[in-house]
Amino acid sequence: MNRLALALAALSLPIPVAVSASNPDMTLEEGADRVLDHDKIAWDFVEGITTEVGPRQAGTEAEARGREWASNWMRANGFDSVAIEPFEMETWVPGDTHKAEILSPFAQPLVVQPLGGSASTGPEGITAEVVYFRTVDELRAAPDGSLKGKIAYISHSMTPTQDGSQYGFAGPARWVGSGIAASKGALATVIKSVGTDNHRNPHTGGAGFPDGVAPTPAGALPLPDAANLERMFERAGGKPITMKLTLTPKQLGTTMSGNVVGEIAGRDPSLPPVLVACHIDSWWNGTGAFDDGAGCGIVAAAALHVRHTGKPLRTIRVLMAGAEETGLWGSKAYSAAHIADPIAVGLESDFGADRIWQFQSNFREANPDLHAKIASSVARFGVSNSTMVANGGADINIARDQKTAIIDLQQDGTRYFDLHHTPDDTLDKIDPVQLRQNVAVWTQVVGILANEPGEILPKE
Amino acid sequence: MNRLALALAALSLPIPVAVSASNPDMTLEEGADRVLDHDKIAWDFVEGITTEVGPRQAGTEAEARGREWASNWMRANGFDSVAIEPFEMETWVPGDTHKAEILSPFAQPLVVQPLGGSASTGPEGITAEVVYFRTVDELRAAPDGSLKGKIAYISHSMTPTQDGSQYGFAGPARWVGSGIAASKGALATVIKSVGTDNHRNPHTGGAGFPDGVAPTPAGALPLPDAANLERMFERAGGKPITMKLTLTPKQLGTTMSGNVVGEIAGRDPSLPPVLVACHIDSWWNGTGAFDDGAGCGIVAAAALHVRHTGKPLRTIRVLMAGAEETGLWGSKAYSAAHIADPIAVGLESDFGADRIWQFQSNFREANPDLHAKIASSVARFGVSNSTMVANGGADINIARDQKTAIIDLQQDGTRYFDLHHTPDDTLDKIDPVQLRQNVAVWTQVVGILANEPGEILPKE
Repeated sequence: MNRLALALAALSLPIPVAVSASNPDMTLEEGADRVLDHDKIAWDFVEGITTEVGPRQAGTEAEARGREWASNWMRANGFDSVAIEPFEMETWVPGDTHKAEILSPFAQPLVVQPLGGSASTGPEGITAEVVYFRTVDELRAAPDGSLKGKIAYISHSMTPTQDGSQYGFAGPARWVGSGIAASKGALATVIKSVGTDNHRNPHTGGAGFPDGVAPTPAGALPLPDAANLERMFERAGGKPITMKLTLTPKQLGTTMSGNVVGEIAGRDPSLPPVLVACHIDSWWNGTGAFDDGAGCGIVAAAALHVRHTGKPLRTIRVLMAGAEETGLWGSKAYSAAHIADPIAVGLESDFGADRIWQFQSNFREANPDLHAKIASSVARFGVSNSTMVANGGADINIARDQKTAIIDLQQDGTRYFDLHHTPDDTLDKIDPVQLRQNVAVWTQVVGILANEPGEILPKE
Repeated sequence: MNRLALALAALSLPIPVAVSASNPDMTLEEGADRVLDHDKIAWDFVEGITTEVGPRQAGTEAEARGREWASNWMRANGFDSVAIEPFEMETWVPGDTHKAEILSPFAQPLVVQPLGGSASTGPEGITAEVVYFRTVDELRAAPDGSLKGKIAYISHSMTPTQDGSQYGFAGPARWVGSGIAASKGALATVIKSVGTDNHRNPHTGGAGFPDGVAPTPAGALPLPDAANLERMFERAGGKPITMKLTLTPKQLGTTMSGNVVGEIAGRDPSLPPVLVACHIDSWWNGTGAFDDGAGCGIVAAAALHVRHTGKPLRTIRVLMAGAEETGLWGSKAYSAAHIADPIAVGLESDFGADRIWQFQSNFREANPDLHAKIASSVARFGVSNSTMVANGGADINIARDQKTAIIDLQQDGTRYFDLHHTPDDTLDKIDPVQLRQNVAVWTQVVGILANEPGEILPKE
């Protein structure tokens, strides 16, 4: 037996939390209300996978254990047709050594972790002068070649937002910063973490390099370390600031990942199913509680609770996508494999576990009655209607590829970027009361969708 | 030049923040009130030492840079008789490798850092079954020899307290836990961090081993990791939990440390001085902002602000003690060197930078008028009187050894143990408004003491 097989053999089999036998005397509304105070299923999923598996870096043996754990859990909790659908991916791993040290003029160590896709400095590290850019725009304005032999440091300023919109504002420091710096000759890049906390925990995440630009080492400093480095620039009086940076990530080449799927079978298998999605992988540095163990717990629990109030008309299909974090590998593989199997509607939960506060769909104009019915049904949980057009998330590529109905159940993101892609993404951050509100809203919405006889997004 | 001399040569000289020229038109009360809104001196100290020096582990080259930085700062800000008083100490350093990994039944890495005084596992680490004790009392009850070949894990539960009193309640898990476990045969000990936060930052601190018990490796898990390990015990169904622990601290033997001293000279050098103290060292994992850069900034700023309202009657002596964290080496050395030079009163600031809320002295009965005068003088800053008898802190051994007057200006400790001895002890945690309230209260109290003509604690 290889290491993976040995590890799998050591896993204990999950004990189902709640037998989802049907209770035909309970309406969907009553079922959703009951969830609000009583659900233990979502918590059991996220507690279980964070405790019994922990970090699940895409493409690794740890992610494979996560798949096995999740598929065992789905079987134990009564899902039908549970399967792992394997796919190939290109796998990056963070390596063991992550060090940053200011050598002069103010010698002290800083905390750092590599960004996804970072090249290695080699174990001996690199030492260079740091050039400070307050924004990505400042970096863009730097002359070509001006960073030759230098380490670029990219800052930004990010405000917590309920709708998460400042991720789009601050994210480019990570998404494109190291690529731009590399194209101007930088040896390496460090960024201020794209986050809103003040702890010594770096926020990792994927860093992109343009075609034709070789990836360089790229790391994220926690916000306190970024602030310290910026104060050094203020206090150095123009003296160069020299950093030694050691990051040893590796590209492993092609490895296997997989999607975990399972169903609550519907009464009419001829109708396209309701697809509810999340992702099973996490960055290596946390345990993937908020991102996205909670999401998988929410969608799976909701499917079971809908079943509890009676066998639904349509099948509810749960997709726990693999390898989301490093490039949506699982979501793309699922869409490619199932493009010819129409779904009725796609929904994903991948934004933590805080309260849902807004409902959005992409069929408010095409199917106003159904939109209004759903909006009305979730008002009692504090979820408001919206005229925004839902476009789904990373795990439901298939919904966009098939141009189906999409619903976004917007979670409160105010503290999401305190935890996102950090070591601090652990179970204790999840508020069980807010988690249950998520499951209640999802139960209500998925229950309506799964019992909808007509087309959800009517074809024009 | 050796590495230290090179590093010192690279330090920029501090620029004084406020020239402390005397303003005889300002009363002490007016001076203290002005501090409340305007002090920049304390912040300058703690910003400077955390940015330009950073971590200052006792007995190391980094602590020596801290001493040089602080003595340069004191000179630049107008202190008299600034000096470094060297002493020898036995020095422990944390080493480079700090890893804990659960191998079975639920393989995943945990975050860990060594406790001060921990032995090394060697770079190869040790692998053993973990035995779970919910409290130190449970560990005490374990039969002798019962931990042979095992890793002891010691938990506890700690509530945030304004007066910090739960440190005494929860602290024994660290102070004596690993010593007790070692005496019962344990290979190593890991504890739940003695702290009240929920971040992936271990709380280090000194671990004691009784005479005749050889130190073992001993580490602290952050609270999220401790909770995860405890859930593993719940979920393992009695299966043994195996941990690989790698900690590589070192004992360096005898090295040099030192105390930094400086004075605001009084009008009557024959009167015993007012001693105000803090400590200059910090644990390696943070930058020593709350513990205790802030304290040094507070006491030094207060001394300068008192001087600003007129040359005081008594000298105010500032002691920035070395090597507090690993055994009060500096405080003991200072007392031994100066035991024959009487001080009038000792005060220390070593509990963060949040608001002072209570005044305590040890002369409420012996000198009720002075006690009442001080209590009355700080009421406008929200500081209440207390019947508790002040006994001072770690940095004023000399006050206890000389049996002098002691004052404790109690700071709000509600969030102190979120940060204490962690990587998160960084400048951003300091609230400038609360820091200034500290300096205002200290200015008021030290100003009264330094202008008190009579004995502060009258001899019986």
